[in-house]
Amino acid sequence: MDSLIEYLDGKRQLVNTQLENYVTANTDEGRVRDAMLYSIEAGGKRLRPILLLATIEAFRGNPSKGLPVACALEMIHTYSLIHDDLPAMDNDDVRRGQPTNHKKFDEATAILAGDALLTLSFQIITDSNDLTNDEKVFIVRELSKASGPKGMVNGQMKDMQYENHDIPLRELEDIHRQKTGRLLNFAVLSGAYLAEADDQVMDNLTAMAGALGLIFQIQDDILDVVGDSHAIGKPIGSDEGNNKSTYPQLLGLEGAIAQKDGYVEVAQNALHESGINGTTLSELIDYLSSRDR
Amino acid sequence: MDSLIEYLDGKRQLVNTQLENYVTANTDEGRVRDAMLYSIEAGGKRLRPILLLATIEAFRGNPSKGLPVACALEMIHTYSLIHDDLPAMDNDDVRRGQPTNHKKFDEATAILAGDALLTLSFQIITDSNDLTNDEKVFIVRELSKASGPKGMVNGQMKDMQYENHDIPLRELEDIHRQKTGRLLNFAVLSGAYLAEADDQVMDNLTAMAGALGLIFQIQDDILDVVGDSHAIGKPIGSDEGNNKSTYPQLLGLEGAIAQKDGYVEVAQNALHESGINGTTLSELIDYLSSRDR
Repeated sequence: MDSLIEYLDGKRQLVNTQLENYVTANTDEGRVRDAMLYSIEAGGKRLRPILLLATIEAFRGNPSKGLPVACALEMIHTYSLIHDDLPAMDNDDVRRGQPTNHKKFDEATAILAGDALLTLSFQIITDSNDLTNDEKVFIVRELSKASGPKGMVNGQMKDMQYENHDIPLRELEDIHRQKTGRLLNFAVLSGAYLAEADDQVMDNLTAMAGALGLIFQIQDDILDVVGDSHAIGKPIGSDEGNNKSTYPQLLGLEGAIAQKDGYVEVAQNALHESGINGTTLSELIDYLSSRDR
Repeated sequence: MDSLIEYLDGKRQLVNTQLENYVTANTDEGRVRDAMLYSIEAGGKRLRPILLLATIEAFRGNPSKGLPVACALEMIHTYSLIHDDLPAMDNDDVRRGQPTNHKKFDEATAILAGDALLTLSFQIITDSNDLTNDEKVFIVRELSKASGPKGMVNGQMKDMQYENHDIPLRELEDIHRQKTGRLLNFAVLSGAYLAEADDQVMDNLTAMAGALGLIFQIQDDILDVVGDSHAIGKPIGSDEGNNKSTYPQLLGLEGAIAQKDGYVEVAQNALHESGINGTTLSELIDYLSSRDR
């Protein structure tokens, strides 16, 4: 696990540096840039970019093709956090231990910084010198599908509609599959595509990514009950305060852990079935399942 | 002018039908789709798509290449209106004679519908069967640049920052060049690109588009002073209420009209210099300068 931590740190640093470069190079001085950089520099696990880069490496693909796509993906994730935190949405004041974008700046700036990050993500893909035009078209298409009105945005809408309502587990998982699963799936899918994986491998990796998204979400819910607020950077119990349905609430804490362990097995099996050299990916699955932040 | 009105109606209908098709085909039933369709179906002049299609026609280019790009462009324009109308931004309750998106739905839905339209615009370009991959990459790159943090988004940010402040004409024009000019410029640029125009023609058309954007904005400001609130679909004097700097305020009504006439001459000359068959474009310039809504 120590070597995985080092691996994660290295990749995180690579992604952070490149993200800052992209934002600085493609914005004018001023408030929009400041607000974009604020949320980009607020840190975060960089899980999606790392998953993408680790997938390319598992196929011994060209890592330079992965970096612009990884950064575009993280920009979209970051924009979604900025908009989700707004008062009209989840109304969160703190993220990663710091004021959310609209608390640090104001609502108008936060809306625009989110819009700008979303837009810039497609620009940096098409601007890249490391991708062919065929690759750029594939990536823009899949990334927009994953994050658009049949993907992440729809998941967030349903998440809000179910606030203050009881929700069956099946519906809850559908929401998570759209809201967080689609981007995680894109990370694996695009990494495999850029490394020229064949179709059967893709199917297995899609299954792995699907399980991974739910592992990630269940652990999020678990940490909101039993986690350390300092480590996770927001108050414990905020899901309950927001009247959000969670796994522990629907299944109990033990039940949620059992559900998560089931998905870990699904993910590990699918990865094994794919036949690729997935040591890092396998470690990542365990890491995400047991993370404390 | 009668034939221009017919031309505009025909193109508007073509674009409206295709926009609805795109939204319906690429969304799930539910609140996000409803809110997207609400703003898409609220009408509007469809100026940007029409300018794009008219430019392609001026070069006798393939109009089927223009339609997906025209619709993507209008989706981005529509998303920007939805977000600009939000309480945290311009706080407008009425647009085109109807409740704004967040009044009809709610703020969260309006934010997400805007995000979804922005994202979908890039998807429909990359999904199109009528464009080559090279064309798709060019279009996504230029459209994201025009609408992103060095373009439209930055213009809106500056517009908000100057609210309640006196602003010199030079600054005001810089804002308009970013906020509305960049998308109008994209319409002409992408139309000419898809019709395989050469570089010198492009330079003239860029000059024309630049002037056209300012003509459009000055006439907007003039209509806010002397227009018919029923025709323009919002109350007269709303700029003053919002403490926005306008041409009539900076130059007087006569001065604003003279300024506009100057830009009409610039636009007509640049079009003439380009040497293309620009009858419709020339009529469009005059129409935009004298429109009453």
